[in-house]
Amino acid sequence: MTTSTALHTDRYELTMLEAALRDGTAHRRCVFELFGRRLPGGRRFGVVAGTGRLLSLIDDFRFGDDELRFLRDNRVVDAATLAFLADYRFRGSISGYREGELYFPGSPILTVEGTFAEAVILETLALSVLNHDSAVATAAARMSIAAGDRPLAEMGSRRAAEESAVAAARAAYITGFGATSNLEAGRRWGIPTMGTAAHAWTLLHDTEEDAFRSQVEALGVGTTLLVDTYDTRRGVELAVQVAGTRLGGVRIDSGDLPTVAAEVRAQLDALGATGTKITVTSDLDEYAIASLAASPVDAYGVGTSVVTGSGTPTAGMVYKLVARQDAAGSWIAVAKASTDKGSKGGRKAAFRTVADGTATSELIAVSDGFEHVDTASEHPDARPLQVPLVEAGRTDARYVGPAGVEGARSHHARVREELPVRALALSKSDPAIPTVYVDARE
Amino acid sequence: MTTSTALHTDRYELTMLEAALRDGTAHRRCVFELFGRRLPGGRRFGVVAGTGRLLSLIDDFRFGDDELRFLRDNRVVDAATLAFLADYRFRGSISGYREGELYFPGSPILTVEGTFAEAVILETLALSVLNHDSAVATAAARMSIAAGDRPLAEMGSRRAAEESAVAAARAAYITGFGATSNLEAGRRWGIPTMGTAAHAWTLLHDTEEDAFRSQVEALGVGTTLLVDTYDTRRGVELAVQVAGTRLGGVRIDSGDLPTVAAEVRAQLDALGATGTKITVTSDLDEYAIASLAASPVDAYGVGTSVVTGSGTPTAGMVYKLVARQDAAGSWIAVAKASTDKGSKGGRKAAFRTVADGTATSELIAVSDGFEHVDTASEHPDARPLQVPLVEAGRTDARYVGPAGVEGARSHHARVREELPVRALALSKSDPAIPTVYVDARE
Repeated sequence: MTTSTALHTDRYELTMLEAALRDGTAHRRCVFELFGRRLPGGRRFGVVAGTGRLLSLIDDFRFGDDELRFLRDNRVVDAATLAFLADYRFRGSISGYREGELYFPGSPILTVEGTFAEAVILETLALSVLNHDSAVATAAARMSIAAGDRPLAEMGSRRAAEESAVAAARAAYITGFGATSNLEAGRRWGIPTMGTAAHAWTLLHDTEEDAFRSQVEALGVGTTLLVDTYDTRRGVELAVQVAGTRLGGVRIDSGDLPTVAAEVRAQLDALGATGTKITVTSDLDEYAIASLAASPVDAYGVGTSVVTGSGTPTAGMVYKLVARQDAAGSWIAVAKASTDKGSKGGRKAAFRTVADGTATSELIAVSDGFEHVDTASEHPDARPLQVPLVEAGRTDARYVGPAGVEGARSHHARVREELPVRALALSKSDPAIPTVYVDARE
Repeated sequence: MTTSTALHTDRYELTMLEAALRDGTAHRRCVFELFGRRLPGGRRFGVVAGTGRLLSLIDDFRFGDDELRFLRDNRVVDAATLAFLADYRFRGSISGYREGELYFPGSPILTVEGTFAEAVILETLALSVLNHDSAVATAAARMSIAAGDRPLAEMGSRRAAEESAVAAARAAYITGFGATSNLEAGRRWGIPTMGTAAHAWTLLHDTEEDAFRSQVEALGVGTTLLVDTYDTRRGVELAVQVAGTRLGGVRIDSGDLPTVAAEVRAQLDALGATGTKITVTSDLDEYAIASLAASPVDAYGVGTSVVTGSGTPTAGMVYKLVARQDAAGSWIAVAKASTDKGSKGGRKAAFRTVADGTATSELIAVSDGFEHVDTASEHPDARPLQVPLVEAGRTDARYVGPAGVEGARSHHARVREELPVRALALSKSDPAIPTVYVDARE
C-alpha cells in the first residue's frame, strides 16, 4: 500500500495539466482561492478545520512508480505529463485562515500560489479535506455552544467511513469536544479517548448483575455502567447495589431523555449515590443537547449527528482561479462570469473587524493579483486572518500533527469568544456578521 | 505509516474485552448481526455496499508493535489484554448478503460468529464501512433509476473526505454509475475514470477561444468542452467554430438546466453539430435527474448528492449480539429489551420470496443460535440471501478487490430487476416489500 496522496485527484486536473504543458500556460503564475460561497444549512458562522491534515497530505502528494504506472497504463496523460509528474512536488506558497478560525461567505480560507501546473492539481485533495472537516467542525461548535460547561464526547465513528471517522473526531476536538471513542484518533492526533461498555456486555452475561459486577471488578467503582439494557429503573438499582454509592456514572442510551434523566437522578439521590454522574448518548444533536440544558445531565456522548455535520455533511467550499499572469507577466483578476455561480476575481486579504471584543464584519480587500495588502496601515483595528502555511514548498511545522490540533483548539476557543450573541442561536439564519468587500486596487 | 486497521475501533470494545478476559466470558461463542432497523430517508429499498472493502480491512485488523505501544502507553487495556491482542486475528466466520444485494428493515446483512472476544472488536470497523458505503449506494441506485439509459458519472470527490471519496466512487459504480472522476478509485478498484476540463482552464487563457483550441489540439475533437464560463450561447458557438461539427460534447455546469439544455441542443443542431452530446453537472440529485428526463441531455455528472447519500449520509445500521452460548455451551437468543430500541434476538436466515419475477417479501427465519435453517426444504421458492464470506478466518477471494466490485455490480443489476414498480418511485414512503419473520425454533 502506497502512502502517496497524489491520485486523490479528479482526472480533469491532469487532463488540463497535459493541455497546459503543451500550450505553455502551465507555467503561468496563478492564485487559487478556496472559499465557501455561502454557509450551508443556515449556519450563522463556519469553522475552518482540516488545514493541518491537508498540509501533511500535500507533503505526500508525489507521483511514485505506482501512480505513474497507473496513469500510463490507463492512458490518462501523455509522456511529457508523466515526466512532469515524476518530478512534481508543490514548490509554491499557501496562506490561509488558521485552523479553528471562524469563516463567513467569501472568506479566503486558503490562497494557493504557484504555477498553474503545480496549483491546479491540488484542487480535489484540498477541497475533500476542508469540506469534510469544516462541516463537522461547524456542527460540533454548535453542539459545544449548546452543551455549555458540560463535557461532550464524540462517539460517531460507526456512522462515518473509517478514515472520515478519525478526521471527524479531530474536527470535533478542535471545536470543543473533550474526548472521542475512536482509538485511531487518539493515536494519530493525541486526542483523549473514552468508553466503557455496550449493551453487548450485559447481554453476554447470564445476568445484568454478573455484567455489572465484572465491569466494576475490572475497571473499578469509578466506571460508568450502562443501565438501560433491560429496565432502566432496575438497572440503576442494581448498579448502586453492585458498585456502591461511589459509582462513577451511569449511561442512558434510550427513552425520552429529559424524563429518564430526571427519574434516574432522583433514584440515584434516593439511593445515596449523589455523586454518580449521568451520561446520555441517544441520538443527540445540537437541538437535543439544548433541550436538556435544564435536565440533570452531567455529560453528553454524540454520534451520528456530529460526524455527518448535523444535516450539512459538506461545507460546499470551492477552489477557484482568481488571478493569473498573462504571457507578459502582468497579473489579471479572473472569475467565471455567467449565470448563477459568479465568483469575485482577484486576490483577497481578509480581516475581522472587532469592536469592544465583538466581531462586527469580515473585511475582504480585493487586489488584482500578486501584491499583498498592507494590513497595518489600512486596517489598524482589524485582525488579519491569514497566516503563511507553506512558503516555497516548505510547510510551517507549527500547524501539523498533534501540536497543530492543540493549537487549533486553543485558537478556536479564543476566537469564538468574539462571536456576537446572535451567532449563538441554533435556528437557521443569515451569517452573524456581514462580509464587506473593499477594493485595494487603487 | 501503518496499514493496520485495528485502531479503527471504539475504545469500549477493548474495555469490554479486558473485562471479559478477566471473567472468562471472552471465550463464549457469540453471533453478532449487522442490520438496519429501518430504511432512513423514507427510502423504499436499501443497497448493501462495502462488503468487499470490509473483508480486506478485516484481514489487516492486526495489533502490531505500534498499535500495542499506543494502547500500553495510554493504559487503554491491561497486560493480559495486550497479550491477547498481539496474537489476534479473526478466526471466526462471517456470512452475509452479497455486495450489491438489496436490503430491507431487519435484513441480516452480516452475521459474525466467533468468540465474544474476536467478534466484538470488529463492531466499529464493520459499521463504519457498511454504513457509509450502503448510504451512498442506496442514493446512487435511485439516481441510476432516474437516469434510465443515460450514462451517469460520479464526480463528488471534492465534497467528501479523501478516503470516503474513493469508497463513494466504488459504491456508485456498483449501483449503476459508469465512471468516476476519482483517479484513486480507478487505480484501487478498476473503475473507469473520466474528466476533461474545469472553468480554471478557460480562465487561465487569454481568451475562451485559446482555451478551446488548446484543449482540442491536446485531446482531439472528441473531447467535451465546458461552455458556460462567460456566456453559454457564445461558448457553444465558439466550441463548434473551433472543433467543428464533429465535436464530441459540451458540458453545462450552471443555469436552469431544462431551459439551457434545450437552448444548447437547438443551437448545436442549427450549427450542424447534431452528434455533439450534452453533459450536465450542476448540483444534480435524483430529483433533478428525473426532472430532466424529457430534456435533450445525453449524460449526467453527479457530485455532492451522491457522495453524501442525498440527504442520508449514513445507513444507520447497528451491530448487535443476538445469540451466545452460556457457560454450559447451550445457545441463548439475546436482545436489548428496554424502551424504544428493541431488537429481535436469535440468529436469522434470510430469503427473498419472488413471484413472477417480482420480489414479494423479505422472509427472515429466526433460530436460537447455532443451527442454520434448512433453506431448500422449508422455502423452496425463496432465494437465500446469505453467502459465506469468511470461513474459519479465511476470506472468500471472489468478493474482494476489483473482481469483487465487478461481481457486486452485476449482482446489483440482476436483483434490481426484481424490484416491484412501487420501489422505483423517488418520493418518501415505506419499504417496497414487507419483512416477514418466521420462527424456525420448533
